[in-house]
Amino acid sequence: LYTSKSHDIVKNLRCQIFFDLINNFILQLTACVFQDFDLAAIYVSDAQYNRNIYFDTSPQAVRLYLLYNHWVLKVLLYFFILVDLSLALFEEPAVVPLPSWVTMLVELLCLLVFTLRLIHYAKVIPRDKFWKDPKNICIIVILLLTLVDMIIYGALKAANCYGVRWSRVLRPLLLVNVTEGRQLRRAFRSIRNALPQIFYVFLLFMFSVLMFSLMALKLLGKRGLTTIEGAPYFTSYLEIVFDLYVLVTTANSPDVMMPAYNASFVFAIFFILYILINTYIFMSVFLAVVYNNYKKYLKEEVRQLVRAKRHKMVRAFAVLQEQKEEGGEPVVSQASWNQVVHLVQPDISNAHRELLWSVCDDKNQGAIGKVAFVQLADLLNIEVITIKSRPHPLNSLCPAFYQSAPSRLLCRMVQHRAFVIVYDLIILVNAVFIGLDEENPMIANSEWVFLALYMLEILLKLYVFEPRAFFSRHSFWNWFDTIIVVSALVATIVNSAMKSSGGYTSRQILDIVFILRVLRLIRVVDSIKRFRTIINTLIRIGPAILTFGQLIIVVYYIFAMVGMELFKNKVKFYEDTSDPAKAYCGNPLLKGTAFAQLNYCKNNFNNVVSSFILLVELTVVNQCSGFATVTHMSARIFFVIFHIMVVIVIINIFVAFVLEAFFVEYSVDKSDLQTSLEKKIEELELAVAQEKLEDNLVNAMETIDNDLGTSQSAAANVPSLMFKIASKRYRTVDALLQRMFEADLDPEDFAEHDDPEAQGNGNFANPTFSSA
Amino acid sequence: LYTSKSHDIVKNLRCQIFFDLINNFILQLTACVFQDFDLAAIYVSDAQYNRNIYFDTSPQAVRLYLLYNHWVLKVLLYFFILVDLSLALFEEPAVVPLPSWVTMLVELLCLLVFTLRLIHYAKVIPRDKFWKDPKNICIIVILLLTLVDMIIYGALKAANCYGVRWSRVLRPLLLVNVTEGRQLRRAFRSIRNALPQIFYVFLLFMFSVLMFSLMALKLLGKRGLTTIEGAPYFTSYLEIVFDLYVLVTTANSPDVMMPAYNASFVFAIFFILYILINTYIFMSVFLAVVYNNYKKYLKEEVRQLVRAKRHKMVRAFAVLQEQKEEGGEPVVSQASWNQVVHLVQPDISNAHRELLWSVCDDKNQGAIGKVAFVQLADLLNIEVITIKSRPHPLNSLCPAFYQSAPSRLLCRMVQHRAFVIVYDLIILVNAVFIGLDEENPMIANSEWVFLALYMLEILLKLYVFEPRAFFSRHSFWNWFDTIIVVSALVATIVNSAMKSSGGYTSRQILDIVFILRVLRLIRVVDSIKRFRTIINTLIRIGPAILTFGQLIIVVYYIFAMVGMELFKNKVKFYEDTSDPAKAYCGNPLLKGTAFAQLNYCKNNFNNVVSSFILLVELTVVNQCSGFATVTHMSARIFFVIFHIMVVIVIINIFVAFVLEAFFVEYSVDKSDLQTSLEKKIEELELAVAQEKLEDNLVNAMETIDNDLGTSQSAAANVPSLMFKIASKRYRTVDALLQRMFEADLDPEDFAEHDDPEAQGNGNFANPTFSSA
Repeated sequence: LYTSKSHDIVKNLRCQIFFDLINNFILQLTACVFQDFDLAAIYVSDAQYNRNIYFDTSPQAVRLYLLYNHWVLKVLLYFFILVDLSLALFEEPAVVPLPSWVTMLVELLCLLVFTLRLIHYAKVIPRDKFWKDPKNICIIVILLLTLVDMIIYGALKAANCYGVRWSRVLRPLLLVNVTEGRQLRRAFRSIRNALPQIFYVFLLFMFSVLMFSLMALKLLGKRGLTTIEGAPYFTSYLEIVFDLYVLVTTANSPDVMMPAYNASFVFAIFFILYILINTYIFMSVFLAVVYNNYKKYLKEEVRQLVRAKRHKMVRAFAVLQEQKEEGGEPVVSQASWNQVVHLVQPDISNAHRELLWSVCDDKNQGAIGKVAFVQLADLLNIEVITIKSRPHPLNSLCPAFYQSAPSRLLCRMVQHRAFVIVYDLIILVNAVFIGLDEENPMIANSEWVFLALYMLEILLKLYVFEPRAFFSRHSFWNWFDTIIVVSALVATIVNSAMKSSGGYTSRQILDIVFILRVLRLIRVVDSIKRFRTIINTLIRIGPAILTFGQLIIVVYYIFAMVGMELFKNKVKFYEDTSDPAKAYCGNPLLKGTAFAQLNYCKNNFNNVVSSFILLVELTVVNQCSGFATVTHMSARIFFVIFHIMVVIVIINIFVAFVLEAFFVEYSVDKSDLQTSLEKKIEELELAVAQEKLEDNLVNAMETIDNDLGTSQSAAANVPSLMFKIASKRYRTVDALLQRMFEADLDPEDFAEHDDPEAQGNGNFANPTFSSA
Repeated sequence: LYTSKSHDIVKNLRCQIFFDLINNFILQLTACVFQDFDLAAIYVSDAQYNRNIYFDTSPQAVRLYLLYNHWVLKVLLYFFILVDLSLALFEEPAVVPLPSWVTMLVELLCLLVFTLRLIHYAKVIPRDKFWKDPKNICIIVILLLTLVDMIIYGALKAANCYGVRWSRVLRPLLLVNVTEGRQLRRAFRSIRNALPQIFYVFLLFMFSVLMFSLMALKLLGKRGLTTIEGAPYFTSYLEIVFDLYVLVTTANSPDVMMPAYNASFVFAIFFILYILINTYIFMSVFLAVVYNNYKKYLKEEVRQLVRAKRHKMVRAFAVLQEQKEEGGEPVVSQASWNQVVHLVQPDISNAHRELLWSVCDDKNQGAIGKVAFVQLADLLNIEVITIKSRPHPLNSLCPAFYQSAPSRLLCRMVQHRAFVIVYDLIILVNAVFIGLDEENPMIANSEWVFLALYMLEILLKLYVFEPRAFFSRHSFWNWFDTIIVVSALVATIVNSAMKSSGGYTSRQILDIVFILRVLRLIRVVDSIKRFRTIINTLIRIGPAILTFGQLIIVVYYIFAMVGMELFKNKVKFYEDTSDPAKAYCGNPLLKGTAFAQLNYCKNNFNNVVSSFILLVELTVVNQCSGFATVTHMSARIFFVIFHIMVVIVIINIFVAFVLEAFFVEYSVDKSDLQTSLEKKIEELELAVAQEKLEDNLVNAMETIDNDLGTSQSAAANVPSLMFKIASKRYRTVDALLQRMFEADLDPEDFAEHDDPEAQGNGNFANPTFSSA
């Protein structure tokens, strides 16, 4: 298995390290002269991370551009956006009230930072491009409007008038526009493009609701029925429309139909028909339309993204290319390639780089053409895990002891399948003990036993496995386990120390202890293979779900700001249970309503935290009758718009995304590039058999460890360096998206990197297309 | 445009009619001799309607088989199934109580009918096939079990003991098995095959619920919180699990979190996390898994269906084939083909048959080979509308008047776009008037004006358009309009007659009048093209939705039977409002519960109608605390199982089906066969320009009628016969399904009709495949 060829390669790798050191030295010396490499590295890096900024290629602009992309500046920017958004906590109506001059000063500082960032951006890209981008115009308008609002508000405050900080609604738009929140902007664009289609279905749906309401008015309005509160039932058309709209959200089912149903069961048929048509059929049609349109536009966006990426790689190639032989195709030499890769990803291991080069330079010619070069961005996005097979440190320190028979028996025991099963059983027993009453001293003390058992497990594994491999970056469950167990140990010790010293138990620490105890149980899931696949899929689509999280936060923030202005202090929550106002939430209008009776007083818009929690509740079930009571019927419009925006549009897009991601997981296997990379790894015979690693190193090192154990005990036969493609992880959301539409992407796009027009004017624009 | 070729064809058609008459005569004479044609016709008919019964080919069996497929027997069977199912209305707990000997006699009659049907079936197919089909075994077992149950119940009744008619649960299974409910059985098979995958996701989901419950118990159980009813909050583990499970259905949101949220807003985060993971992510994953699996298995089923269809056509070909020339390929002559088509579809017009032949016999050879013959089943499934362009009867009766200038002006006015707009406006004004109070005499009288206007519209259209074309089979909106307006007129006259004669107004008639008035408004939708496309899609997937309706009824029936045994008379509804028991639904256990307070007493299992309505409510929102109170905590299991079966499995399959159908509508255009048929129609120059007909004759004759008017006034240039493919309508659900998976179907299946093995043993089985 282990041929001389791979020996050569290992030797080659060592030479490479030396070569690289010299290369780096030269690079440092010639950095000011050879701006070219910097430029090419920026193009490659932009292609890798799908950045789409058309910067000037003058040395100064390039330096500014590098600074612009520096992570410190980005983190600072996000920090100030967070500060700006969290100002809502301190402004009226506040969670922690601060004088308004403090919040306004902080906001001014934030605005200043955003302005500086914008100026920096303006210096990086050509003047005309800057003014053509609607994003920049949007930022400038928001900044100006915020300033104007602050001045007006300050003046009104000084004159002791009532002022509204209406520009707060615009803040989340900064999150969308100031940051390089590409995913977020793309999601917004997709929604905007899908809106016309959704709108027509919505009109038809509203027509259906209006028709049913008219029929309900005619059938039920004259019968003198009353609701449970004694109010006339179904007598006002607008009330009926609203009630039936809420019925679609299932919030007032079956309450809304009970009076009619009590009168005669025939009316139940009316409501069942309504629910069938509007809740089930129309909501499915909404999902179908949203899904179809979102997918269509997203696919188009991803197509343009891929095209832009290839243009950038072609530009990088143009910078690096050299003519190897007269009249021949331009190529990039291995030296230049190495230098660029080193600049793009300084932390890449030499072995890994060598591997990538061998994939590009398939025929071992020492130089690669354009087509092979263009692959680089995708290659860098494939996560390759370098596994260094090292002997256990105890083996090096004290081989006689570590190799002794009892020690080896221990190793074999820990690596046995039964070890996993025993610990799964322990976890189950632990779960039962957690469920029992912890006041019982026997149960309380058993916790120490379990903690000891878990610690023992970790120590045993550390004894058997090489610690650096055990705590490698991809061993999610090992990290999870260790952190949970160690924190639980610390928290339990602190808790019992406090208890024994003063007899006082901190509720917070106890809560943490409980949460940690329960979290420990999650590990059982990892032992069952079927569960692991589902969970891995969920983890994989995790980053994309975060994008939807941002989207939701933007929409929630806007609705929270508007809601606070409309409804603040209309409904009050009293901590003091003896206060008589508690029974009607401090608002006499709510006396006797279901809202007050069900004790919903804390569901209010009195500060930004309450507002967010209330908006989540509204997303789940749109129950808002209380707010219509305390203000005006028209307040319901606010809740209906919220429902349309969040439930019909965003939640459906979320569902569509999860569906699509799962279908991709079910259908697609590997990209061509990954296949060729894997083939290369296999060829190099540095690879470990796929099935061995699939189950232990990457996904779950500690569950099926006997395989690894075997390969370790046969350490002499295994090379000291192994590669493994973390084939199903995506470094970026873009990579997942590209994968989702890979099958549908136009293959001729690949040929298009030679398109002279696109190459000529360097027009790798942000993806845009007409909505026609 | 009108060439001599089509003249020839028209002449040909006339000859054909004569030829057919003679042919039919000969056929009648030789029917007993030439069983072949009967047999071939049965094969073709089976292929067309996807019937999969392997009947004996002996003349007697064929005759029995024809009888078996006779529509009268099928209608009778459905009638007896309906009777059997609706027995639940008369049995304890009954809507209309009947003595148990009556219902049992009726049930015995039904069982007898089913047994006879089964015996009939056994005579049709070979003995060994009969016993191999699980469907037949299932029917026999159900029949026997029902008999046993009836005997036991009768004996218990005679001894005055308490008996349970448990076999009632089995009744809906007869609907699945006795009838040729292929779609239904297929849906059940798909669900059964998808269950393992769903099960694993469900286990993971339950694990998540259990973990969250444990955490909730530890965090909230010891805080001494109370619910709104004063009960301890989150102290029992099983209670928490159930409450959190119900939270997934959003039924008790936000009630279940309010006590914790009132204690501290930090706990809201716990619930938000729970809802995010379990309600949003897991429910989406369920949809994804159900969708993916259902689609996968359905595709496999449809593939086998197509294969079986082709086998049957090959068998029919084998019966009809003749050797035209020595050593040549066997062919089917036009005469045999005509005879078979005539037997399969006696109502087919000669022109239509001629058209189909010309599609098959593309090269005009007078005979067709196997490949062309196999198309016949699909060709017969394409709905071709024969349009006979006739002059208006008034034009024939009194041409001078009909062709006069005022008459022609009137025609032009009615055909003008403005006419449609004016009537749309009238409908809108009508909608406003309906919304107003009808006690007002002005409003009441306006109804007569509107009725007159609508009648005028219909009469004008009848004056302008040929009545038979106006009331053609595909003019849905014309029929709709006329029926609604005429019934409204009749009902209004009856109503006012009753009012003026005795001053008495029947509530029922008034209700009908109101419903008809509101339904009239629906017509507006048809004027807007965007709406029309959405509605047409919905109408197209209508038959498939009915299949799901059957599925739901089967599941509801089973749950209703079980529910009635478990919960009958536990909750009572009192019509009499003065009864003190009404406040707690006649069950002291419900005193002070939310169930009684919200007046849900009529939501009970006291008869089959109430049970069905309650099950619909449970499908929408799983609110069942009342029933757990009146019986036992374990009653909740019933509701959880119902939720899993109906909401997680069936509703998700329904959503998946709607999504898939919409995607097909968005992406697929026409099948190859339809294209070739259309090409042929165009070639024959009998076709009218597609775009003219698309909008008026088929979809909406009355909205854009001026086009038709033009073609009518130029009647001399138009042939007297036109064809039009109703391209997007599906005669059968199978056709829609085949269309859905057309793109994915293995094209090599088409070649497989020569497969000797399958052809040899005639094994076109009901689609089955291993669930591996």
